[in-house]
Amino acid sequence: MKTVTQEETSLQSEVSALATPPSGGGGAKYLQIASHIEALINTEALRIGDKLPSVRTLAEEKSISMGTAFQAYYHLEGKGLIESRPKSGYYVRFNRRRIPALPAGVPSDVQSHNVSVKDMIAEIYSDIAAPIKYNFALGVPDVSLLPAAKLNKSMVHALRNTTDHGISYENTRGNPELRKQVARLAFNWGGHVAPEDVIVTTGCLEAINTCLKAVTRPGDTVAVECPTYFGIYQAIEALGLKVVEISSCPVTGLDLDCLQTAIRNFSIRAVVCVPNFSNPLGSCMPDEQKKALVALITRHEIPLIEDDIYGELYFGKARPRTCKAFDTSGLVMHCSSLSKSLAPGYRIGWVLPGRFQAAVAQIKRMQNISCPTLPQAAVAHFLQTGRYDLHLRGLRQALHTQCLRYTQSIIEHFPAGTRISQPHGGFVLWLELDETVDVFRLRSEALKQQIAIVPGKIFSASCNFSHCMRISFGKPWNEDIDYGLKLLGNLVKKQAG
Amino acid sequence: MKTVTQEETSLQSEVSALATPPSGGGGAKYLQIASHIEALINTEALRIGDKLPSVRTLAEEKSISMGTAFQAYYHLEGKGLIESRPKSGYYVRFNRRRIPALPAGVPSDVQSHNVSVKDMIAEIYSDIAAPIKYNFALGVPDVSLLPAAKLNKSMVHALRNTTDHGISYENTRGNPELRKQVARLAFNWGGHVAPEDVIVTTGCLEAINTCLKAVTRPGDTVAVECPTYFGIYQAIEALGLKVVEISSCPVTGLDLDCLQTAIRNFSIRAVVCVPNFSNPLGSCMPDEQKKALVALITRHEIPLIEDDIYGELYFGKARPRTCKAFDTSGLVMHCSSLSKSLAPGYRIGWVLPGRFQAAVAQIKRMQNISCPTLPQAAVAHFLQTGRYDLHLRGLRQALHTQCLRYTQSIIEHFPAGTRISQPHGGFVLWLELDETVDVFRLRSEALKQQIAIVPGKIFSASCNFSHCMRISFGKPWNEDIDYGLKLLGNLVKKQAG
Repeated sequence: MKTVTQEETSLQSEVSALATPPSGGGGAKYLQIASHIEALINTEALRIGDKLPSVRTLAEEKSISMGTAFQAYYHLEGKGLIESRPKSGYYVRFNRRRIPALPAGVPSDVQSHNVSVKDMIAEIYSDIAAPIKYNFALGVPDVSLLPAAKLNKSMVHALRNTTDHGISYENTRGNPELRKQVARLAFNWGGHVAPEDVIVTTGCLEAINTCLKAVTRPGDTVAVECPTYFGIYQAIEALGLKVVEISSCPVTGLDLDCLQTAIRNFSIRAVVCVPNFSNPLGSCMPDEQKKALVALITRHEIPLIEDDIYGELYFGKARPRTCKAFDTSGLVMHCSSLSKSLAPGYRIGWVLPGRFQAAVAQIKRMQNISCPTLPQAAVAHFLQTGRYDLHLRGLRQALHTQCLRYTQSIIEHFPAGTRISQPHGGFVLWLELDETVDVFRLRSEALKQQIAIVPGKIFSASCNFSHCMRISFGKPWNEDIDYGLKLLGNLVKKQAG
Repeated sequence: MKTVTQEETSLQSEVSALATPPSGGGGAKYLQIASHIEALINTEALRIGDKLPSVRTLAEEKSISMGTAFQAYYHLEGKGLIESRPKSGYYVRFNRRRIPALPAGVPSDVQSHNVSVKDMIAEIYSDIAAPIKYNFALGVPDVSLLPAAKLNKSMVHALRNTTDHGISYENTRGNPELRKQVARLAFNWGGHVAPEDVIVTTGCLEAINTCLKAVTRPGDTVAVECPTYFGIYQAIEALGLKVVEISSCPVTGLDLDCLQTAIRNFSIRAVVCVPNFSNPLGSCMPDEQKKALVALITRHEIPLIEDDIYGELYFGKARPRTCKAFDTSGLVMHCSSLSKSLAPGYRIGWVLPGRFQAAVAQIKRMQNISCPTLPQAAVAHFLQTGRYDLHLRGLRQALHTQCLRYTQSIIEHFPAGTRISQPHGGFVLWLELDETVDVFRLRSEALKQQIAIVPGKIFSASCNFSHCMRISFGKPWNEDIDYGLKLLGNLVKKQAG
């Protein structure tokens, strides 16, 4: 497995910070100033605890208004990088360079495994439904970050304007306007997609299930990056498939060398991968690597099931591309949904099945005929009005801030050796604790204190990662969250002894 | 296979007509009078072409108002039994005794078959999506018979009153109020069901798929009544199962002797059956036979997947019971939905999985996590207000009338030897034509004249029934429909030549 040094990644984040004014205002003056200060903090020209110039001084130095200077500080404070101290001024609070080491990961054995994770997952999910005070197990951004009122308007519009008021079956492949909007979204990641290429599904998970069904038979072997979203393992288990786990770097994702070995040693029928902000690692595969991955699977004629559900939740300047963008042979089956970025309860997902279009449509029809009519019409209208783009701009900024704030709290409250991922998108952190810590046991202790986490073990079929956990930062950070993470950190310290 | 003589069934329908004032007004006076006249027609005391007493005479004879007498005639006219001739009065037009012979069916070979129907079905369904003038292939009651405006109100109520406006995931097992309402509905068929027994699915087809997955593994053999709904064959094919087809009587459904033979000769892992108004035969299994079926599968510990999707669409006095009503061991997995009786586009189905509850919930979660939140909340509200019961009363009456009207048209326009089913519920007729007629070929000819039908072949894995077709009477009868059936009849005559 390729290891990434701390130096490399801080450099990376520094450059990205310099290059990337946080989204929301494009190149507004205050953002330029803020970026500049952020760069100084990252290079440690300004160190933790250093006092910043007063608002007045900053305004004079930079020849900007006091308002703009204040805005810049306010922005940095929002990101958790500086803090204002009463009657004193602004101070540096946080430095990305101080972030602990990245998770080291577990090298893959490149062996074929049977999968049996469903009981473990059922156990975890049996108590996630219960209301809990500190819920770090959430698989979605907090509902307060989602545009309920505006979606309501679109639903009312759909009720009034859909044929038969939405009482009739929708086309198996989905609402035509929604498919058009999905094709339009693809433009953002470099895709040339026609509405006819899209099949609407009940969330991304149904898309992945359907793709797997279309290209495998029971007993076949598929390759997946590891660790990865347990829903993928469940789908594999339900279909009676075997799995070869491909190790994944917390920064750049799926290890291509490892995949190549797997392809050499096994008859791989499909590869499943989350290239953008993978769950749980938060890794983002560089575009060049995506291109190489597509070239590799194309050479071997292996379908690639790409889960791009987090692709829109980037913290950087531009949306990362997708594997599908590099696909010329129709082997990439691109799956996504709006469950993580708009409305989980609407259950709107889709797949661009490439050359497997007919098979996927047939399976979808055989499974449940079509998705409900009205939610599709409502979301189509919402996308059509441009409200989605607007909403995403705010959501990305909120998640970016939450990411930094949660990371700070964890650094503060967890044992010193804790390794933490540095995602550039999405809403989850991956923590690697001391190897002696059994997170499954920790989880039971935590539940007693009203804290929910997801143990690392369920993100793999070989049950590695028993000393890892996933922390969701989907809920806006506040003192309560900080306190919850403190309680959790104390439990970890107790176990790590 | 048990054969049912013409005498037996006319007798049956006569008795049911006497016993059963059509629903809508319970024991209203005009209905009593109408029932009485209907009985006279059925026993041929009044024969086709006979003149009925004038409204005035009827009123005097029966000591009723002219209005009530008129209402009775109006009701019988609606059912197509009598007709008014201008300036002359009312005449008998139709007699159930004159209905042609029932379909003879095809005796089952009680052999195990591989299933490969999906391509044939995909072909059929590729053109069903296109708008067509005479659509007798419809799998749903016409949208004009469904309460769109009232459902709209419930959706607006759901938008306002659901937590987070329905933006969040619903529980995997479904909306709690909806599950309560489904439990309440079960009371009508003699069920003792608690809300916790219910799992909500994307229509009935997902329920059946999920049940099959829960109790079989690829390569297993299941028994299904034959002919049966092609969606069931598709599900079986998709799961890589083998099938033993059990012959089914057009009146009383699944042949228990045949099933017993199958159980003796094969290792049957599940039985799939549509006891109430089966699609396509329209047969309704007598309650005693349901009880015997449940006893049989219980003795052999074989799960029974019961599809009760048409159960509420009865023409008689009371809702037929279900197999689940006789289940004491939890082996019956009862599946149903609102797609045929309320709103196909809402995709609200459910399953009462009995002892397989945990497995079914797990598969549902693995497949697509949960059903969309708002349609569930809207339908729960609709059921809660009692609007569903009211709607069903009207729908049943409309379908009953349509059934008689379509049957008349077919008798009039099709060759004399045509055998027609006599369903006591649902919205489909099963036609057995001369054995020389190839309905698959007929279908292509019909499509050229803008007529859609479903060929009998797709209701079986062994591809019998090639001289049969299914005609839906979901659309209200009118002169246009009559003309469409005439065109179709002519095509049949040409082929039967």
